[in-house]
Amino acid sequence: MAVKENLRPGGRSARVQASVHKAVRELLAAMNRAEVTIPMIAGKAGVTPSTIYRRWGDLQELLADVAVERLRPDMQPVDTGNGQADLQAWAEQYAEEMSSGPGREMIRDVLAAQAGVNACKCAEYTRQQIDVIAGRAKARGAAFPDVDLVMDQVVAPIMYRILFGDVPDTTRVRDLVTRVMSTTD
Amino acid sequence: MAVKENLRPGGRSARVQASVHKAVRELLAAMNRAEVTIPMIAGKAGVTPSTIYRRWGDLQELLADVAVERLRPDMQPVDTGNGQADLQAWAEQYAEEMSSGPGREMIRDVLAAQAGVNACKCAEYTRQQIDVIAGRAKARGAAFPDVDLVMDQVVAPIMYRILFGDVPDTTRVRDLVTRVMSTTD
Repeated sequence: MAVKENLRPGGRSARVQASVHKAVRELLAAMNRAEVTIPMIAGKAGVTPSTIYRRWGDLQELLADVAVERLRPDMQPVDTGNGQADLQAWAEQYAEEMSSGPGREMIRDVLAAQAGVNACKCAEYTRQQIDVIAGRAKARGAAFPDVDLVMDQVVAPIMYRILFGDVPDTTRVRDLVTRVMSTTD
Repeated sequence: MAVKENLRPGGRSARVQASVHKAVRELLAAMNRAEVTIPMIAGKAGVTPSTIYRRWGDLQELLADVAVERLRPDMQPVDTGNGQADLQAWAEQYAEEMSSGPGREMIRDVLAAQAGVNACKCAEYTRQQIDVIAGRAKARGAAFPDVDLVMDQVVAPIMYRILFGDVPDTTRVRDLVTRVMSTTD
């Protein structure tokens, strides 16, 4: 089910969303996720369960919607004055955040939803961060690999390892960054 | 919950597993997965629900266990007489199978389970296939990239695209293979 986008800020729909998201975050902080139900969320958010079913379809879609909101980066990548160092710092932080307990839970929620819309958004947030780093390098007149290549050779291997049972350590992340940067030599 | 491994073939435990797996496959073929319950599976498999809870912990773990079994490759990679062509053929088939409807369902089931044991197994099956291709190339005295590099630069980007809303088309897969093979030049 497609979740409505571009809500009018402060409108009724946006207020319902904010209230429901807040209720989900509070419930997840207080109890095991397997115990959380839509009627429980509705009660806490002050809406009817049918409002939630109408808007999100099912619990899994709602959890994915909340998770992707939390995965949205809340800061620009650190600007070190050098593209490789920027990418290195960003990739290390990304690997650390995504492989943490809460990071893994959020990725699992996003991927468990049938509708792929939140998974796409998640990849799009990541791409935007790399875009910022690439844009800065170009503004300095420095070479920087294509953003698609960075997604394939840095982001994808980090995410694959996290999802399929490995931990991408700092050395590994550094190797990935060094390799992709060498393609611009 | 860890699923018991290395069952004695033909033993009681192996027979229970085979019967429960079969029941799950048949139910998933006949109805929507959201409707499948443990008592329903138990009834069809001729075991008690508590047998299933004891062995698998919950429905998600059982679904992951069945999914990973279906993800186990049932054939060796095609032997074309050339490492790059072998990897190319394997990667195209992998991308096609994993991005199909049933492939996506199986990956989702494997990743949705809390215990990561099945996700690890899934990555291990993939690595074994690459190992076979690498071993053949080496037996011919041909250069072949490190298996870790192939996992990072071919498998991970394909899986990332599938999970995060893109489709890895043949051209893209070919580019990934060509790039990783060029590292052995």
